[in-house]
Amino acid sequence: MLAEIIAVGSEMLTPHRQDTNSLFLTAGLNDLGVEVGFKTIVGDNPRHLVEAIHNALRRADILIFSGGLGPTEDDLTRECVAEALHLELFTNSDVVIALQERFKARRMEMPPNNLKQAQVLEGAELLMNPNGSAPGQWLETVIRTADGHTHRRLLILLPGPPNELKALFTQEVRPRLADVLPPSFLARRVLRMALIPESTVDARTSPIYRRFTDVETTILAGHGEIQLHFLCAKSTQEEAEDRVDQLVELIEREMGDDIFSSDGESLEEIVLLMLGLRGFTLSVAESCTGGLLSERLTAIPNASRNFLGGAVVYSNDLKVGLCKVPAKLIQQNGAVSPEVARALAEGIRERTKASLGLSITGIAGPSTLDGPDEGKPVGLVYIGLADEEDTQVKRFMIPGDRNRIRLWATQHALEMLRHSLQ
Amino acid sequence: MLAEIIAVGSEMLTPHRQDTNSLFLTAGLNDLGVEVGFKTIVGDNPRHLVEAIHNALRRADILIFSGGLGPTEDDLTRECVAEALHLELFTNSDVVIALQERFKARRMEMPPNNLKQAQVLEGAELLMNPNGSAPGQWLETVIRTADGHTHRRLLILLPGPPNELKALFTQEVRPRLADVLPPSFLARRVLRMALIPESTVDARTSPIYRRFTDVETTILAGHGEIQLHFLCAKSTQEEAEDRVDQLVELIEREMGDDIFSSDGESLEEIVLLMLGLRGFTLSVAESCTGGLLSERLTAIPNASRNFLGGAVVYSNDLKVGLCKVPAKLIQQNGAVSPEVARALAEGIRERTKASLGLSITGIAGPSTLDGPDEGKPVGLVYIGLADEEDTQVKRFMIPGDRNRIRLWATQHALEMLRHSLQ
Repeated sequence: MLAEIIAVGSEMLTPHRQDTNSLFLTAGLNDLGVEVGFKTIVGDNPRHLVEAIHNALRRADILIFSGGLGPTEDDLTRECVAEALHLELFTNSDVVIALQERFKARRMEMPPNNLKQAQVLEGAELLMNPNGSAPGQWLETVIRTADGHTHRRLLILLPGPPNELKALFTQEVRPRLADVLPPSFLARRVLRMALIPESTVDARTSPIYRRFTDVETTILAGHGEIQLHFLCAKSTQEEAEDRVDQLVELIEREMGDDIFSSDGESLEEIVLLMLGLRGFTLSVAESCTGGLLSERLTAIPNASRNFLGGAVVYSNDLKVGLCKVPAKLIQQNGAVSPEVARALAEGIRERTKASLGLSITGIAGPSTLDGPDEGKPVGLVYIGLADEEDTQVKRFMIPGDRNRIRLWATQHALEMLRHSLQ
Repeated sequence: MLAEIIAVGSEMLTPHRQDTNSLFLTAGLNDLGVEVGFKTIVGDNPRHLVEAIHNALRRADILIFSGGLGPTEDDLTRECVAEALHLELFTNSDVVIALQERFKARRMEMPPNNLKQAQVLEGAELLMNPNGSAPGQWLETVIRTADGHTHRRLLILLPGPPNELKALFTQEVRPRLADVLPPSFLARRVLRMALIPESTVDARTSPIYRRFTDVETTILAGHGEIQLHFLCAKSTQEEAEDRVDQLVELIEREMGDDIFSSDGESLEEIVLLMLGLRGFTLSVAESCTGGLLSERLTAIPNASRNFLGGAVVYSNDLKVGLCKVPAKLIQQNGAVSPEVARALAEGIRERTKASLGLSITGIAGPSTLDGPDEGKPVGLVYIGLADEEDTQVKRFMIPGDRNRIRLWATQHALEMLRHSLQ
């Protein structure tokens, strides 16, 4: 079964907007054993849209449309599908009543344009939209290709706003698809690693995963992280899970401690989990990362159980004032130095009475400022980790621009913490 | 002139990866007066790719391919373009030599597969790739459609890695396109506003921008911000700029102070700029936003000139310890209260000797914790802003999930600061 996703809307042909619905739709289709063969993005142009529909009818079994179901003149999906398949559009009186009630509830007059949304393709089933005014449509049809053969085609029309599309797909489309498609039993796992080059991961793991020809393996790299995605389809759920488990076990044996999570958790989630297991609290002192490390940790719900907070000590005065770093130490060594990293980690730990103090000081660029750090290279970062007994400091040289240096510095800090908690 | 962007690669048909090159390419093409009519995303499947090329040749004047130029068996763009246009592929000896030197410089043996990258389409011009091993290709050709008409077509093959694609497009493709296309004079402006509903902006500005039928207006909304993009093409640069200026002036008159920038700067850039003009310094105390406000400010280069840093006071002890909030005040009012917001803003200002202290305390959810804030609703946020003379505190109820509440809280804080600096 091959699907094509057709995203309709001129805004997605500008430099500013991208189709994002297709990622969600692809995941949902893959879960049901349907492969996505093409994605087409087309503007609010009837000639272009009809042409795109003709192409998709030739090459895909399932056509999923997102967008173009609104009430404006630019919303053309219904009309263009009707034209491509030579179908009539009928006004559905239930939808008209629902629309009128929707407007009445908001004490608004319904503009006549909105009646467009009540138009239903001949032979289509309506998919009720809990989050918006435009219903989706489900149409099973048969087409005849130029060579005279006939083919069954399924067309699914969904509204563009992601909250509407997701609810409709989950509540209406998914169960209907499960009914018409052969059953599919899939097992998935995601292994995550930080700060290792993709080529190293591939060199070490490909001899293993290549032997599992029945497991689809994808390597994704970015933001200082490597992910290995495994996907296996079998005739029973147990068989699929067993097969993925076998592969994961071998990969875990090879990569060992480099794997920070085997069930998809993020690095910050894992670190918070480990802090929780040990009953430890953490405070941080950040210079060049300016709050990014705190922000990443506090983005996780209930971080407050083990994360106390910290100081963003962008200026040297704040390093002294908030983290008790001796001013002389900064004068002598510069703010970006192992000595200051150590003093920051120890200072924030002591001041906040945390079990652990973690510090980052570095040069994120684009240029080195004046003062004692003049001449130190952009990308130089020191990270300090203080506990009751000891403080360790590590030096890193991180290539790239300001954003990358800041992100990777927080990755290194989280990895240092994770290793020390193991 | 209509262009189609064809992104080649099976990873972009998974739920994990998206084509992002097309946004960059669209901006570059629009600048030269070329509209993007379609985007097609197709996997590493020769039958699918050839079919996609046939469709694109029928409907677009310019076909830009990204990806599929690497050395592996999955890299099929060259072969499929050759098949679709019935062209030969020739091995270019200059590219072979360049490839061999590349491997030699890295002291590696060149795998025979890599010779694929030296294959050039009959009649194509090579585009040298400064950042990678696969050169791009530029092919001008003529096709005959089923109706017997002939059409000129331009095909541009670019490598998929964004750094390679961007360099090649900028250095090689752009100048060549400018030579073959009629000159185009474009003026653009972006007006940005925070925290206003999109519908309000549209209701107030559409009566104005609709009168400028020669200026293309796009409204983008998201992340607590509304952007109005204006684009105008005229026969001279001056004429285009004048026309956009006229529209911007009218919109500025209507929206007034709600517009925080008229040249595309972000809210944090504007706030830092205003602090700089006044010679003020800023420190922040963040509870529920956990460092996000600091992180946004320090993501801007040279933020350190006016941003001193601050405290992430996630725990109540840190509110007391780092920002001198009286413990009794928290006991009596809860951490999420106007009293604590005031004390945090005044405390961080005093402690760091900043001109201004800005504080955020609120409930980001997903659930209210125990203690004095029990029962306060998720989304309740207080923001405090202290200067030498006075402290103002505002209350906000922000709907949505944890991420949205955190982001909008920082938007409100930056907007409060911006208004006070005006």
